[in-house]
Amino acid sequence: MTVKQLSLPELARACARSGVTGVGLWREPVQAYGIAAAARLMREEGLRVTSLCRGGFLTATAPAERRRAIDDNRVAIEEAAALGTDTLVLVSGGLPEGSRDLPGARERVADALAELAPYARERGVRLAIEPLHPMYAADRCVVSTLGQALELAERFPAEQVGVVVDTYHLWWDDRVPELIARAGAATGADGTLPGGRIVVFQVADWITPLPAGVLLGRGQLGDGAVDLRAFRARVDAAGYAGPVEVELFNEGLWARDGGDVLAETVERYVRHVLG
Amino acid sequence: MTVKQLSLPELARACARSGVTGVGLWREPVQAYGIAAAARLMREEGLRVTSLCRGGFLTATAPAERRRAIDDNRVAIEEAAALGTDTLVLVSGGLPEGSRDLPGARERVADALAELAPYARERGVRLAIEPLHPMYAADRCVVSTLGQALELAERFPAEQVGVVVDTYHLWWDDRVPELIARAGAATGADGTLPGGRIVVFQVADWITPLPAGVLLGRGQLGDGAVDLRAFRARVDAAGYAGPVEVELFNEGLWARDGGDVLAETVERYVRHVLG
Repeated sequence: MTVKQLSLPELARACARSGVTGVGLWREPVQAYGIAAAARLMREEGLRVTSLCRGGFLTATAPAERRRAIDDNRVAIEEAAALGTDTLVLVSGGLPEGSRDLPGARERVADALAELAPYARERGVRLAIEPLHPMYAADRCVVSTLGQALELAERFPAEQVGVVVDTYHLWWDDRVPELIARAGAATGADGTLPGGRIVVFQVADWITPLPAGVLLGRGQLGDGAVDLRAFRARVDAAGYAGPVEVELFNEGLWARDGGDVLAETVERYVRHVLG
Repeated sequence: MTVKQLSLPELARACARSGVTGVGLWREPVQAYGIAAAARLMREEGLRVTSLCRGGFLTATAPAERRRAIDDNRVAIEEAAALGTDTLVLVSGGLPEGSRDLPGARERVADALAELAPYARERGVRLAIEPLHPMYAADRCVVSTLGQALELAERFPAEQVGVVVDTYHLWWDDRVPELIARAGAATGADGTLPGGRIVVFQVADWITPLPAGVLLGRGQLGDGAVDLRAFRARVDAAGYAGPVEVELFNEGLWARDGGDVLAETVERYVRHVLG
């Protein structure tokens, strides 16, 4: 999504050229290109698919709508498996129209996970609950903190359900250091699971003022208020050794040449996340 | 601020007409009108000044800027006392330009409180730390949760420093019920303090999409996602018996007739907060 102006083949070639070895994909462009063809393309360019975004939207109360959401998540799990990634990112969904019942909506997410997690596990896919910033709690994601995401994930085996740590959504929360440590300390059935429940680590910076709708204002790494390096160090210390995804939704970046944005992002990543 | 299109005399008369018995005032219009004149006006219309908004902005690192902020807060405390209110609301301030150190900024707020709280207490004014929604953490208020506000307040006697509970800022947080109970359980030096550390209870609804800048999108009571009645019941159960302030920053409401907005707000309040 950081360079969504690029087609999948352009993206794969630009990643290979920039020394990027893995890429998180989104369902819509992959479906449009064809799942098998996308899997082949990434393989041929030597790119690992780090995650598929996104399943979820599991908060509906109407039975038919709820069933459709569960079915669509099964398809997403199959797509992830076909792409060769072990990670499906879940965005929980917001409040149903007219509802004010956040705890109830969160429980419906838990119920849906109980249906989906074993199905995913059989296909080698782990579900990653992504807490989104509290400003999205009403209309997009009722899971707003790493604490809430962990409480949901911890109802299931660590091999089945984990969490996304995304700096954009979590940077303001003083409980995050202790929660990252708790997530990292989880172990699998065999006593080990590197990184515990941290399935994906995503980075973006926080810049203001926020644009209308607050969706497309994520900052390029280093442009904002987030101490990205400290976040990365915490995730490292928790035992996480998986991919780091840069996920910037930003209309300014999308209006530029995708190759240039990718090169700039790699440079910023080295300077502000690794450095 | 809900009806900022009204002058102070218009506001006082409209409140009296609508059965509103108290009003939270903001510093700028009060200063423009004159502190003593505003105090007299409210008294003559039988209105209690429930709080003065706002002091704070205590996160600067530059010594001169920091000193100016402390001095300005002393003036705000004196203004509150002159208006006859026992409550000064504090908005902490955001990160200094270029800083990424949230914990450091929060500590500077604590240091400033240590200077200001005894000064306020001598003048019969309690400082009320207002946690603002996490979407304001970078540019407006580094205190983002009721938990953080309480941890700051609890370093001082409950008669000196408390917290604001504002539904708009806190509605998404699943820890709030337990935190309201904790805030309410605080006692003063003589063993009693009704409502404990809850100094003010403010209500506004959460509506989407958020406008650019995310400042002026607060929803009229009942229009959004917040279970206002449940919030009010929790604050009641915590022993709070003080004023309930409706604080809506909303350009749509400001464009309408102020008297109409006030009447509508009273009706909504009865239906969605009291009811």
